[in-house]
Amino acid sequence: MSHLVIIGGSDAGISAALRARELDPSTRVTLIVEDSFPNYSICGLPFYLSGEVSDYHQLAHRTREELIRSGIDLLLDHTALFVDPDTHRITVNDWAEHTQQIVYDRLILATGARARAPRIEGQNLPGVFLLHSMEESFQMQHYLSGHVVRSALIIGGGYIGVEMADALTLRGLAVTLVEHGESVLRTVDPSLGALVRAELEQQGVRVETGIGVQQISLSSARLCVSGSGGFEAQTDLVLIATGVEPRAELGQALGIKLGTQGALRVSRTMATSHPDIFAAGDCVETWHRMLQRPTYLPLGTTAHKQGRIAGENAVGGHRLFAGTLGTQVVKVSDLAIARTGLRDHEARAAGFDPFTVEGAYFDHKVYYPGAKSVHMRLTGDLATGRLLGAQLVGPVRTEVAKRIDTLATALFHEMTVDTLSDLDLSYTPPLGSPWDLVQMGAQDWSRAVHRR
Amino acid sequence: MSHLVIIGGSDAGISAALRARELDPSTRVTLIVEDSFPNYSICGLPFYLSGEVSDYHQLAHRTREELIRSGIDLLLDHTALFVDPDTHRITVNDWAEHTQQIVYDRLILATGARARAPRIEGQNLPGVFLLHSMEESFQMQHYLSGHVVRSALIIGGGYIGVEMADALTLRGLAVTLVEHGESVLRTVDPSLGALVRAELEQQGVRVETGIGVQQISLSSARLCVSGSGGFEAQTDLVLIATGVEPRAELGQALGIKLGTQGALRVSRTMATSHPDIFAAGDCVETWHRMLQRPTYLPLGTTAHKQGRIAGENAVGGHRLFAGTLGTQVVKVSDLAIARTGLRDHEARAAGFDPFTVEGAYFDHKVYYPGAKSVHMRLTGDLATGRLLGAQLVGPVRTEVAKRIDTLATALFHEMTVDTLSDLDLSYTPPLGSPWDLVQMGAQDWSRAVHRR
Repeated sequence: MSHLVIIGGSDAGISAALRARELDPSTRVTLIVEDSFPNYSICGLPFYLSGEVSDYHQLAHRTREELIRSGIDLLLDHTALFVDPDTHRITVNDWAEHTQQIVYDRLILATGARARAPRIEGQNLPGVFLLHSMEESFQMQHYLSGHVVRSALIIGGGYIGVEMADALTLRGLAVTLVEHGESVLRTVDPSLGALVRAELEQQGVRVETGIGVQQISLSSARLCVSGSGGFEAQTDLVLIATGVEPRAELGQALGIKLGTQGALRVSRTMATSHPDIFAAGDCVETWHRMLQRPTYLPLGTTAHKQGRIAGENAVGGHRLFAGTLGTQVVKVSDLAIARTGLRDHEARAAGFDPFTVEGAYFDHKVYYPGAKSVHMRLTGDLATGRLLGAQLVGPVRTEVAKRIDTLATALFHEMTVDTLSDLDLSYTPPLGSPWDLVQMGAQDWSRAVHRR
Repeated sequence: MSHLVIIGGSDAGISAALRARELDPSTRVTLIVEDSFPNYSICGLPFYLSGEVSDYHQLAHRTREELIRSGIDLLLDHTALFVDPDTHRITVNDWAEHTQQIVYDRLILATGARARAPRIEGQNLPGVFLLHSMEESFQMQHYLSGHVVRSALIIGGGYIGVEMADALTLRGLAVTLVEHGESVLRTVDPSLGALVRAELEQQGVRVETGIGVQQISLSSARLCVSGSGGFEAQTDLVLIATGVEPRAELGQALGIKLGTQGALRVSRTMATSHPDIFAAGDCVETWHRMLQRPTYLPLGTTAHKQGRIAGENAVGGHRLFAGTLGTQVVKVSDLAIARTGLRDHEARAAGFDPFTVEGAYFDHKVYYPGAKSVHMRLTGDLATGRLLGAQLVGPVRTEVAKRIDTLATALFHEMTVDTLSDLDLSYTPPLGSPWDLVQMGAQDWSRAVHRR
């Protein structure tokens, strides 16, 4: 019986384990998890901290029992210290610091990412938090429950920053969001970031952009945050949400090459430079389908896909990771913000000749009650007419999260902007238009190109 | 200056006119419209009759002024009586029966469809209605306003039937829906039709299936409807909604060949068998992308596409209609019902080796409040693994209308069920799952095939 060992119990690790067991039930699968929370949805942490998810156990994609029933041996609260690829041995410590050795035939590294701590003085003060792991969320939850916390300051206006601004506002805190760049949610263009900012401000969030936070200090039992341009603010709690970095140390120590942003280098089969060792998820590079090169883009969707492929190939499969398109969506209060593919400057840097058009379209026929405006930015290649990317912002019920999926599927197949009008999409007046708004946007792009 | 004449002012005709003017502003475009309502959304009639749309003028996709500004000459309330293809002359009557002749260089027939009147005795009694044109909706609205109408009986449980059951219920009427087949909304499989029936019944609609209505009669100022199996019902109003048929007479009279179900035969350029005459919309056959043959499938989306292509090609273009996938969605109360591609029996009849799997999936992560179940039926080809079709039913906010669009885009590109898992779709816990439910369904299909 072959022994597959997987280090890491989040999205990539679990997906790999389940897929391996599904395809080859004769394979023994051991999952080494450093905490007690295998298969927990870290994407759900903001909703736990907002109070919308009352019990953190609900965050488990699957229960421990379900995983065991799938035939996965769980080693919870165990830390992999060292891997010897020559002897195929992993040195593991349990919570009591007892050491054991585990022998593998195939190994999958799914060690994930960690919150990146920027160069800010005072980040270790009580009341200052990072947020990526279950443990970090417990610390924050514990602090929120055990102290009088009326206000919070969030450093970083990316996905976690805006979600947590929303979450802590919902919890009743007065929230300040401080972003280094000139607009919030810089994964979309500034004109759309402005809509996100307006939504946050309407909820009562104070948004400050263009400020680099330099220092956090304690002053009469409150936290004082200071930054560029004379920025000063007092607050009860600080959350640092300035991105994540790959946890690649274990792989690096055993000799796996590193790639973009220090992530483990993998092929599209999720194989590392070491025979019998695969890697997947937030600790590895991600093949970009449009750029045709590796990037670092840690997302839950990608971790699931890469893990599934690593699991398949670790038991003898030959599946290739099809690549990311960078498809993402985030909800901020009532607004959904979605993107797929490349933005104008990203496309230009990749050698395309991009042209971007912005428009606003009703989500459904305006005669039917409740029509709302959706803002779309569509980017296409002037040289080939190829669709390069799209960004959509609209109220949640305008279905922009799924409309971006239509565009992602079109991008997957390298459609031109023009042929989007050939797609046979669904229509009923309460939910759309005879040309769906993605097609109206495509037609506007073509007209704008024609007028140039 | 070339003269393009278009007969018909609904979706196909208007799309053709606008596209022709867009591509060649030097072309003179004349639109002959038999009523006063060019570019009205007949898909919106149920919402006008429900009261959700208070003023029928709102149903116009564009105002008359917008059309005129686009450079379209409108001949409203004019009926084309006869076309002589040899002399390129159209004989036209206006509302006062004044006859004139119009000479065209190119002609597009967009004469649409009409409600099909089945063989039912008494269908001309007052209080019995068909519903396809603006005029028919006015007649019904007038009757509803001018009489005491407490109940309605709808014959036919297709799209218009279920939408009108919903609409008249919303208006406060007691509605009975009578369907000839064994389930309602037979454009989806019976197990999903049962969900639609349950939704209708929950709204108070009485649903009777397996009944062929034979006769409508007047009895003490009420309408009496009788049918097979001893069915008898008294009602204040009857709506016959048993489908539509192409209005192909004008084209047929000038010698254009007829095809499927009496619709005008066209090529994929929307050309007819006559030089200089194109046709589009509900009066023509529709090329089916998967069946690779013509069908008759009159839908607003298709009419827009075909009209646009006819307009493009009438001014010298060479665009092909990419074909329908039969993508459709309808809203019934809070439920959205969507389909694309082929159902099992349709695929089998077309020579595929179909296999269909049904499942229920939450629309988003169940830990986030408000998750609702979506029912999906996915059909794939056992011989090739190719995706053949999908049907989705769920509450409106589960975004099934747009999820079917993702699948329609996948079908457009002849994806296999297996490769749906390669699509980079968007995810945030309040709106989805790391594997979108269309991917979960695809994985369940593959597992079920494996187990066979």
